[in-house]
Amino acid sequence: MKQLLLVCTFLISGLAFAQESPRQHRIIMQLTSGDTLVHKGLMRQLNNMKEAAPNMQLEVVCHGPGMDLLMSDRSIVAGKVKEFADNGVTFLACDNTIRERQLDPAKVLPDAGHVKAGIIHIVERQEDGWSYIKAGF
Amino acid sequence: MKQLLLVCTFLISGLAFAQESPRQHRIIMQLTSGDTLVHKGLMRQLNNMKEAAPNMQLEVVCHGPGMDLLMSDRSIVAGKVKEFADNGVTFLACDNTIRERQLDPAKVLPDAGHVKAGIIHIVERQEDGWSYIKAGF
Amino acid sequence: MKQLLLVCTFLISGLAFAQESPRQHRIIMQLTSGDTLVHKGLMRQLNNMKEAAPNMQLEVVCHGPGMDLLMSDRSIVAGKVKEFADNGVTFLACDNTIRERQLDPAKVLPDAGHVKAGIIHIVERQEDGWSYIKAGF
Repeated sequence: MKQLLLVCTFLISGLAFAQESPRQHRIIMQLTSGDTLVHKGLMRQLNNMKEAAPNMQLEVVCHGPGMDLLMSDRSIVAGKVKEFADNGVTFLACDNTIRERQLDPAKVLPDAGHVKAGIIHIVERQEDGWSYIKAGF
Repeated sequence: MKQLLLVCTFLISGLAFAQESPRQHRIIMQLTSGDTLVHKGLMRQLNNMKEAAPNMQLEVVCHGPGMDLLMSDRSIVAGKVKEFADNGVTFLACDNTIRERQLDPAKVLPDAGHVKAGIIHIVERQEDGWSYIKAGF
Repeated sequence: MKQLLLVCTFLISGLAFAQESPRQHRIIMQLTSGDTLVHKGLMRQLNNMKEAAPNMQLEVVCHGPGMDLLMSDRSIVAGKVKEFADNGVTFLACDNTIRERQLDPAKVLPDAGHVKAGIIHIVERQEDGWSYIKAGF
């Protein structure tokens, strides 16, 4: 009985701790839109999120038309992307998209990381407990 | 050994109960679109959801262009919003959006609650186990 | 104390196993767009996903304008849908949408399954631990 009590105490105190400590958000965003208004809006949102939760972990996966955000010859917010990347936001380019859209890999912003398949990466992050946000209107 | 058995029995019966009892859905919806067709479609969806799951907890976070749903001078479904709010649906206005779009706070529908940063609220709900649905086409 | 140790060992080895075994993805996709460019893009995505994760469980819920994907007289990718369905992808038609849009049930592709309320089905899958992806740009 004592052991059962111990296990329960352990579980309950664990839960209490989870409630009380400041939350460490882990957020996986998906950008599929090539609309420059969406790209500008996303930059504003990242600003707000950084302000509200400075310690969050944030990854932005760009695929399909959304890859334009990360192409040096197409992005209208390349400067902002660099700024956020320098401040801990991770931007990820989808290699499947680069191949299918025949984009020039040399023109992908140097601030971006790479994933093989954008959606599968988003799925794996959700499996690890990250929260999913689809960008765009 | 008896204690271990007890713990396992407790865990297993807990799982069985979770399967058998009618589910209490908790749903966090995100509206970012200002398109009035999307707003009308959303009202139809809320109707269907209320019918299929009368006891669900439902919050609709409006931000970006989606804030139009909750502005008395812009919303084409203000009557419906009031009706759903009276029936337990929570609509939440994003204060960051109000400030950035320089919307008049006095014109936000009185049926709406407020959150500071829409996306962070959606993330926290997901962390608490709510299911996320992005509205719009 | 021995029992407590046993419980902990059991829990920890369970976690280790979850980390090491290849992941069995369970993915619930939502299609609400009637845009044929979105439908073509979705077919490309399903291809990529099948290649990256051949053993995933995948359901695509079509509702609202997204039901066009599954209507024999509207879909521009009916052949592809059949092909994916034959390879284990589940397409689900929303009966609420069929009724509201007064679509002819006889024209729904025979490869599609049915759900009563699309969004509630997506919510229940998330409750069961499936990862959610919203299709479209």
